[in-house]
Amino acid sequence: MPQKLTLLINCPDQKGIVSAISAFVAEHGANIIDSQQHSLGLDARFFMRLEIDTTGSSLTQEELQKAFQPIADKYDIDFSFKYGIKKMAILVSKYDHCLYDILLRQQYGELQVEIPIIISNHPDLEPVAKHFGIEFEHCPINGSKQEQEKQIISCLQKHQVDFVALARYMQILSADFIAHYPHKIINVHHGFLPAFKGAKPYHQAYEKGVKIIGATAHYATEDLDMGPIISQDVIEVANRDSVEDYISKGRDIEKTVFAKAIKAQAESKIILHDSRTIIFD
Amino acid sequence: MPQKLTLLINCPDQKGIVSAISAFVAEHGANIIDSQQHSLGLDARFFMRLEIDTTGSSLTQEELQKAFQPIADKYDIDFSFKYGIKKMAILVSKYDHCLYDILLRQQYGELQVEIPIIISNHPDLEPVAKHFGIEFEHCPINGSKQEQEKQIISCLQKHQVDFVALARYMQILSADFIAHYPHKIINVHHGFLPAFKGAKPYHQAYEKGVKIIGATAHYATEDLDMGPIISQDVIEVANRDSVEDYISKGRDIEKTVFAKAIKAQAESKIILHDSRTIIFD
Amino acid sequence: MPQKLTLLINCPDQKGIVSAISAFVAEHGANIIDSQQHSLGLDARFFMRLEIDTTGSSLTQEELQKAFQPIADKYDIDFSFKYGIKKMAILVSKYDHCLYDILLRQQYGELQVEIPIIISNHPDLEPVAKHFGIEFEHCPINGSKQEQEKQIISCLQKHQVDFVALARYMQILSADFIAHYPHKIINVHHGFLPAFKGAKPYHQAYEKGVKIIGATAHYATEDLDMGPIISQDVIEVANRDSVEDYISKGRDIEKTVFAKAIKAQAESKIILHDSRTIIFD
Amino acid sequence: MPQKLTLLINCPDQKGIVSAISAFVAEHGANIIDSQQHSLGLDARFFMRLEIDTTGSSLTQEELQKAFQPIADKYDIDFSFKYGIKKMAILVSKYDHCLYDILLRQQYGELQVEIPIIISNHPDLEPVAKHFGIEFEHCPINGSKQEQEKQIISCLQKHQVDFVALARYMQILSADFIAHYPHKIINVHHGFLPAFKGAKPYHQAYEKGVKIIGATAHYATEDLDMGPIISQDVIEVANRDSVEDYISKGRDIEKTVFAKAIKAQAESKIILHDSRTIIFD
Repeated sequence: MPQKLTLLINCPDQKGIVSAISAFVAEHGANIIDSQQHSLGLDARFFMRLEIDTTGSSLTQEELQKAFQPIADKYDIDFSFKYGIKKMAILVSKYDHCLYDILLRQQYGELQVEIPIIISNHPDLEPVAKHFGIEFEHCPINGSKQEQEKQIISCLQKHQVDFVALARYMQILSADFIAHYPHKIINVHHGFLPAFKGAKPYHQAYEKGVKIIGATAHYATEDLDMGPIISQDVIEVANRDSVEDYISKGRDIEKTVFAKAIKAQAESKIILHDSRTIIFD
Repeated sequence: MPQKLTLLINCPDQKGIVSAISAFVAEHGANIIDSQQHSLGLDARFFMRLEIDTTGSSLTQEELQKAFQPIADKYDIDFSFKYGIKKMAILVSKYDHCLYDILLRQQYGELQVEIPIIISNHPDLEPVAKHFGIEFEHCPINGSKQEQEKQIISCLQKHQVDFVALARYMQILSADFIAHYPHKIINVHHGFLPAFKGAKPYHQAYEKGVKIIGATAHYATEDLDMGPIISQDVIEVANRDSVEDYISKGRDIEKTVFAKAIKAQAESKIILHDSRTIIFD
Repeated sequence: MPQKLTLLINCPDQKGIVSAISAFVAEHGANIIDSQQHSLGLDARFFMRLEIDTTGSSLTQEELQKAFQPIADKYDIDFSFKYGIKKMAILVSKYDHCLYDILLRQQYGELQVEIPIIISNHPDLEPVAKHFGIEFEHCPINGSKQEQEKQIISCLQKHQVDFVALARYMQILSADFIAHYPHKIINVHHGFLPAFKGAKPYHQAYEKGVKIIGATAHYATEDLDMGPIISQDVIEVANRDSVEDYISKGRDIEKTVFAKAIKAQAESKIILHDSRTIIFD
Repeated sequence: MPQKLTLLINCPDQKGIVSAISAFVAEHGANIIDSQQHSLGLDARFFMRLEIDTTGSSLTQEELQKAFQPIADKYDIDFSFKYGIKKMAILVSKYDHCLYDILLRQQYGELQVEIPIIISNHPDLEPVAKHFGIEFEHCPINGSKQEQEKQIISCLQKHQVDFVALARYMQILSADFIAHYPHKIINVHHGFLPAFKGAKPYHQAYEKGVKIIGATAHYATEDLDMGPIISQDVIEVANRDSVEDYISKGRDIEKTVFAKAIKAQAESKIILHDSRTIIFD
């Protein structure tokens, strides 16, 4: 297997960047497997994602990264190098549809991610974790919620988790918790954000009489349901549909937007710029 | 051609309604061509739409309507009988995509509606009206807007218009104007309402970083962009897309949601209940 | 709970049917909860689905059915009365995505169906059956396939199954097998039928260079992949997608079309007429 | 305005291509504005599209193209340089929906293409051409069809047309005609190819009982309706829909797939490889 490295680039749009970067890769005996770029006109930014095969390079991956620094300085580039497979924790409460969906996709090889731990404030989904052979940690909110969050963070750190997926975790995370994993916590909200923030979005949608309902995967931030949007999907509702039908239909799109966001995060396909996400294909 | 009549029914859900209504139709020698019904669980309402062929009936349509009153009283039914083809006025400003779309669909026979008049605050689209052989009235806002609205209303009345389609008409109508045609003015908004109300919805959507944009056709009410939703559609946007691309993609869905709403209105397929619309197929 | 009965009607379109049927329901003290009808212009057929609450009726359900016969004779009606919850068997091989999807939807209450048995020609998915608490029968093809089919049929009969769901069952059923459950075996095919019949439809789609792939749920008939279509869905493919990506994307739509077809069958919402299915909402 | 040039590349996948090409661009004082690439695993091909700003280059565009030849030879690259805006002819018969759609999109600036001529075998749509200020040529089939095709080709040549759009042109073009514009004639077919080739695809779809209908834009080749697919779209049909409704719904998707294909052709975003099209975003 080739040693694959992913390089994400975010810099002012300017002449010669592509050339400088591809020359750098070639110089060090590596090879560009895949390259995608976007320019955002409004503020003249340049975004790029490269997949690089480093098997032909004499440098270690760390040396390669270091060697890139002068180019980054010259072009004012925010960059990140990513190697290997990321580790993701899943936080759940009692709903299991997103949990099953992720675990099955991972099993099929759709999601290139390791899942060392499933954490929940309830014991209900332990059998699901067991069925898929994944460790389950029960972190109930017995005393203070602060205590419980400490327990979760300690568990995440123990498993050296790269990012966290909130698979319909029904607790609001504190700003302090989120600060431990900035833009590394993905939440799925069952509304077409920015419409229908907060609680009971399907009820809100029903009340408003919309003809299409949606779901949104986004980074958790201090502002509830207001973090950068990663993926969205929608489904039509009919006159006959009750709120229960909305909930049932909504499960299908919650699963797909959530899986899509996790896949993008796992494969280092997201660049965040000014609260907008750039998602590579 | 059969004499076709449409009957819309909105009443408390209760035993025997369907039977009572179909017996009424049969008694008077008429025939049910098509029937659709919905029950909304939340407040136990019953909604029904019937297409009735009255050629076999000895009663005039007015007599039939009168004969129905006792049943309506018994079951506490809000009802309306509709005969024949409705007359629709189109209000436009300078954007022509919705205008062309409606005129072409009417020409193809998709929209069973008469269009006696196109009214605009600008002279620009007169050639389009002319090309389709439709009368065009230029109502510029020279002095007061109130004056202009009076002029428009007088024009609508002259043409005995049943309802009004705002095909990207770029003026906010006064409460007084709207009161002349309650739930008979259909507007198309280029946002996925209730998100992105007001001006420049595509710019708002771009700023927020949503992954899907939408358009909404709704009844114009006093509350700007808050009237009952009739139809909605969405389209994905990509990283590469600028606000201009949103505007361009948006034209496609503005046209379809608008046409769908007009078709429903023209064919008496909308029942309004508590600010929600029930749309029959 | 009300005693709910479903009545499906298929007859020549003619005057007075709706009236006769609703009078019949009212006469016997029952109540129409829901009613849908379609007329197909081409051959002037009338299709209707009624949900009837029989709690107020003094007749048993069998007596009610018998009492309907004279009306059926008069109007030349093909009809069927359905009571209670149907029993469905699932046949699988090794792919588990459709299996998980159905079992979860049943657990959520989306699919109103009993699943007494899961049958497979391989032992691999027994743990999944066990996880959901459902009996699993292993019917391997050791000797003749005819023997194995006999074993399956005997198992289906033992569990008094109403219909059969082929959740990516990788064996072609004999005409003899199908004759035991005419239009009661639902298969999911991973192609947008009638395109891409037979083996490896995603490979065929890739070769042809289509831009959208599909999946189809249909009744199994003697003609492989040619039975009446019940539901279909599609998903876009991209330049970057390999056949493996098609397979991965395809799983999502296979699940939804299959679930939709099973739901329609379970709720008696399918009328078959001349190899076309009429699906009520 | 910058002098924009588009470079399309199709070659065996190999180390160093991206680097060689971007070095070439930088060496000649030009700048890469946009770059997209795809690798197709099956046969290890590499496809790339570059938009290059040549304002900083001292070479003429022809010289630049010539200077690229050695690189093309070294890496076995099929390439094409494209400058400026392409000229497209539209062939129509009597249906006008695709014609209006294209002309309006061009007017809005969505389609960056010049339309010097509209050609038809019928005189009916001359007023549409006139309304949009475009020359109209009536080429009736009076005597032999061969004669008529000669007349059309002569007209296309006179207007130095780059490619041809068949906007529901209801005549089958001869192999000889097609040979004049290989992979430069875009047809729109009202079926979800490869299903429903040939005449009356909506009738075929209705007969077969599919639940979703489609439209396909493809390059016209000798094999009727079998040329490389460029774009496809689909729309659901309902039980209530007659063939006429299919035709009506189909118009909407015929327009969008056709416009999408024309846009891709106009912007040099199509690479053809082994009867599959690679479409850049």
